[in-house]
Amino acid sequence: MSAEIICVGTELLLGEILNSNAQFLAQELANLGIPHYYQTVVGDNPDRIKGVIATAQYRGSRILIFTGGLGPTPDDLTTETIADFFQTPLLEDPETIANITQKFAQNNRVMAANNRKQALIPQGAKILPNPTGTAPGIIWQVADLTILTFPGVPSEMIRMWQETAVPFLKSQGWGKEIIYSRTLRFWGIGESNLAEKVSKYFDLTQPTVAPYAGNGEVRLRVSARSDSPAKALEIITPVAIELQKIAGLDYFGADEATLASTVGEILLSRGETLAVAESCTGGTLGQMLTAVAGSSSYFMGGVISYDNTVKINLLGVNPKTLDRLGAVSDKVAKQMARGVRKQLKTTWGLSITGIAGPGGGSADKPVGLVYIGLSGTDGTKLVWKYTFGEHRSREGIRHLSACNALDQLRRYLLSK
Amino acid sequence: MSAEIICVGTELLLGEILNSNAQFLAQELANLGIPHYYQTVVGDNPDRIKGVIATAQYRGSRILIFTGGLGPTPDDLTTETIADFFQTPLLEDPETIANITQKFAQNNRVMAANNRKQALIPQGAKILPNPTGTAPGIIWQVADLTILTFPGVPSEMIRMWQETAVPFLKSQGWGKEIIYSRTLRFWGIGESNLAEKVSKYFDLTQPTVAPYAGNGEVRLRVSARSDSPAKALEIITPVAIELQKIAGLDYFGADEATLASTVGEILLSRGETLAVAESCTGGTLGQMLTAVAGSSSYFMGGVISYDNTVKINLLGVNPKTLDRLGAVSDKVAKQMARGVRKQLKTTWGLSITGIAGPGGGSADKPVGLVYIGLSGTDGTKLVWKYTFGEHRSREGIRHLSACNALDQLRRYLLSK
Repeated sequence: MSAEIICVGTELLLGEILNSNAQFLAQELANLGIPHYYQTVVGDNPDRIKGVIATAQYRGSRILIFTGGLGPTPDDLTTETIADFFQTPLLEDPETIANITQKFAQNNRVMAANNRKQALIPQGAKILPNPTGTAPGIIWQVADLTILTFPGVPSEMIRMWQETAVPFLKSQGWGKEIIYSRTLRFWGIGESNLAEKVSKYFDLTQPTVAPYAGNGEVRLRVSARSDSPAKALEIITPVAIELQKIAGLDYFGADEATLASTVGEILLSRGETLAVAESCTGGTLGQMLTAVAGSSSYFMGGVISYDNTVKINLLGVNPKTLDRLGAVSDKVAKQMARGVRKQLKTTWGLSITGIAGPGGGSADKPVGLVYIGLSGTDGTKLVWKYTFGEHRSREGIRHLSACNALDQLRRYLLSK
Repeated sequence: MSAEIICVGTELLLGEILNSNAQFLAQELANLGIPHYYQTVVGDNPDRIKGVIATAQYRGSRILIFTGGLGPTPDDLTTETIADFFQTPLLEDPETIANITQKFAQNNRVMAANNRKQALIPQGAKILPNPTGTAPGIIWQVADLTILTFPGVPSEMIRMWQETAVPFLKSQGWGKEIIYSRTLRFWGIGESNLAEKVSKYFDLTQPTVAPYAGNGEVRLRVSARSDSPAKALEIITPVAIELQKIAGLDYFGADEATLASTVGEILLSRGETLAVAESCTGGTLGQMLTAVAGSSSYFMGGVISYDNTVKINLLGVNPKTLDRLGAVSDKVAKQMARGVRKQLKTTWGLSITGIAGPGGGSADKPVGLVYIGLSGTDGTKLVWKYTFGEHRSREGIRHLSACNALDQLRRYLLSK
C-alpha cells in the first residue's frame, strides 16, 4: 500500500511557483513510513485530473494525496472532479458553510456566492478541517483508495496535515515504523571515487546507503527503518563509522555540519583563532565562517583586499611582489595570509587570491586559477594552487575557492 | 504535441530536495510556447521509470524531458532504462569518454571506472553536452517521441538546457511565438502594499503583470506573447515604465539587476568608490558587491571586524564607545563606516553591526537589532536602525542587513 502525491494547479505547470508542498508531504510520508513512489503535477483540467487518478490507481497507489484546486474560483475543480470520477454526488456540508460564514464575518468581509462551492463534498467523505483558511479538504475512503485533499497554500496545507491527516493516518496503522537518516559529508573526493570505495554498502537494505553530490560536496545518506529514532540510530551508527573510516580525511562531518563549522570545532578544541584575507571571494569565506553561531569564539575577522592598495596598506603585501608576479600568485597568497594573521593577532591566517571571471583571464593565468595561503604563528607557510577551469561560473569558482580554503585548513589541523 | 517533465530521483520522493528543476523547465516550456500538462517524479527504479514512460506516451506527451539519474553510481539508471524501454543497445561515445578524462585531469583527479558508464548512450541518440559536469545528456528521437535527458544538478541542467536544448527545440519549430518577460525589482515595500498601488495592472492580458516576493525583495513580472523579443518589448516597455513611476525609489532595477549591481552602476557613474566594514554579516555585504563582475572599478574592499579588537585596531573604533554603548550601537556603526572609509581611502564607507542570533540578544538589544552606518568624504554621517524581529533566522537577519545597507546607500546617492 503506497501513497502518491498529486499536485493540481496550472501555476505549477507554468513554473510560477515552486512545488514546496510536494517536498513537505514527501518528508512527512517518509517519517510515517508510508511508501511513496510517484508524484504527479497536473493542471486544473477535469479530464486530465481523472486520467491521473486512473493512472495512480492502475500503478498501485492506494493513498492519493491532492494539493490545490480547492478554492472558490471556477478553475478550482479538484473536489468535484474526484467526486465525478467515482460517480458520487456532491453534498453541501452545513458545518463548513457555517465556518466559512464565520471566517468572513471575523474579517468584516462579505461571503461571495462562489464560496458556497467550497462546502461541497462527495457523499460519504469526511471534512478535513482547515483552521486557517476557508477551503476545507476531505478524507474519503472510496473503492480501494484513501483520498485526502488539501488547499495549495502551504501554510494551510501544513497545519491541516499535522492536525488532522497525521492522526488519521496513524489511526490506520501508519507511523509505527519510521525512516530515520543521517547524512555523512565529504569534501575533496568525487562522487564516483567515493562510490567505488564504498560500493558494497549500496547493496545493504537495513540501513540503506545512497550517494548525492552538489557544489563540490559529496554526501552519503544512511537510513534505517525502525519504530524509534534511537533504534534506527543503533542500526545506522556502525555502518556510518565504517564509512567514515574508509573515507578518512575526506569525511568532514554529519547532518548539519559544514566545512566552516568543522573548522570551527577544531579551532575551538585547540584554543586557536583565525583571520581571513580575501581577494576574489570578496567576503565569501568570512560569510561561511560567521554563518556558524558562536563563531566569534575563534573567528576574529578579516580583510577583504579586493583592490591591490588594500593588499599593500592593510595586509603589508610587498608592492614589488605585486608588480613582479601579479596579485594572483603564490607569493601574494602567502603574504596576504601572513599579513592578516599579524594584523588581527590570530593563530592562523587564511587567504584567497584568484581569478573568478568571467573576464580577467589570460593564457598564463586563466579564469579559475586560485591560490590559497595559510600562515601560522608556528611558522607554517603554505600555498595551494587550484585550477577550477574556465567553464565554471564566477559564483561557482568563488564557492569552490572558499570551501577548499576551509578544507585545506581542516586537513592541515587534523594532520598536525 | 505536448511535453512532460519527468524527474527521476529517490531523493525527491524522500523530500530531501526541492524540485526546482521542474519549475525552471516549466517556465522555459512556457517561454517556448510548448504545451505541458503533466510533471512526474519517480524514484531510481527501472520498472517504475518504464511505467512512467508508457504512461506519458499513452496520455499523449510527445517530448519527454528527464532530469536526474545520469550520474556514475549504480542507482543512476535513467539512460539505460530509457534504452531498455525502447529495446535499443547502449554504445560508448568516444568523445564523451575523452571529455570526462580531460575534466578529471584538469582537477588533478583520477577517473573512476564507473565514470565510463556516463559515456553510454542509446544507439541513434545524440549527445546533449554538459559543459560543467561529467554526465552528458541525450537528445533522442525514437518512435513518436523526442527524449531529452539532463543531470539533476540544477546548474549543469540549466546550462545544458540553454546552450543545446533550446536551440534544438527551436530548430524543431518551437519558440516562434514566445512569451517574453521582464522582471521589475523592488526593495523597501511589501508585496501587498505594492500590489495595492498597481492593482489595476493585474487585469491586463497583454502584457500580463504578476507579483512575486521572497527574501525581502518584491518583483513584478511583465510578460507579453509575441513572435519576437523586440515586439514583445514594445508591448512590455510602456507598462514597465508606468509601474516604475508608481513605485518611485522602491524600484531598483530589472531582470538580472541586484541591489549590489545597482549601487555599483551609481558609483561608477559618479566616479566614486566604496569600502565596507562588517560585523554580524561577516562578509555578506562584500560577497554581494563582488558577485558583480567588474566591481573592482568601484569596490576597494573592506574589513570584517567580527571581534571588537578588530574594530579598534583596524577601524579606529573608540574602545570607550564600545565599553559604554556596546558593539551594537549607532555610534559604533558610525565609527566603523568612517574608519573603513579612511583606511581604504574611498569616497564612501558602509558599515553593519547587529545581533544575528540565535543567541546574544537581550531585552535592550534583541536578536534582529541592526545598525547600518554610512560615512562620506563630503561629511556624510548617517545611521539607520533596524529591528528585524527575533523570529527570523540568523541567515535571514544577515541577508536583510546586507540588502538594506545596499538599499540605503542606493537611496541616499539617488536623492543627493
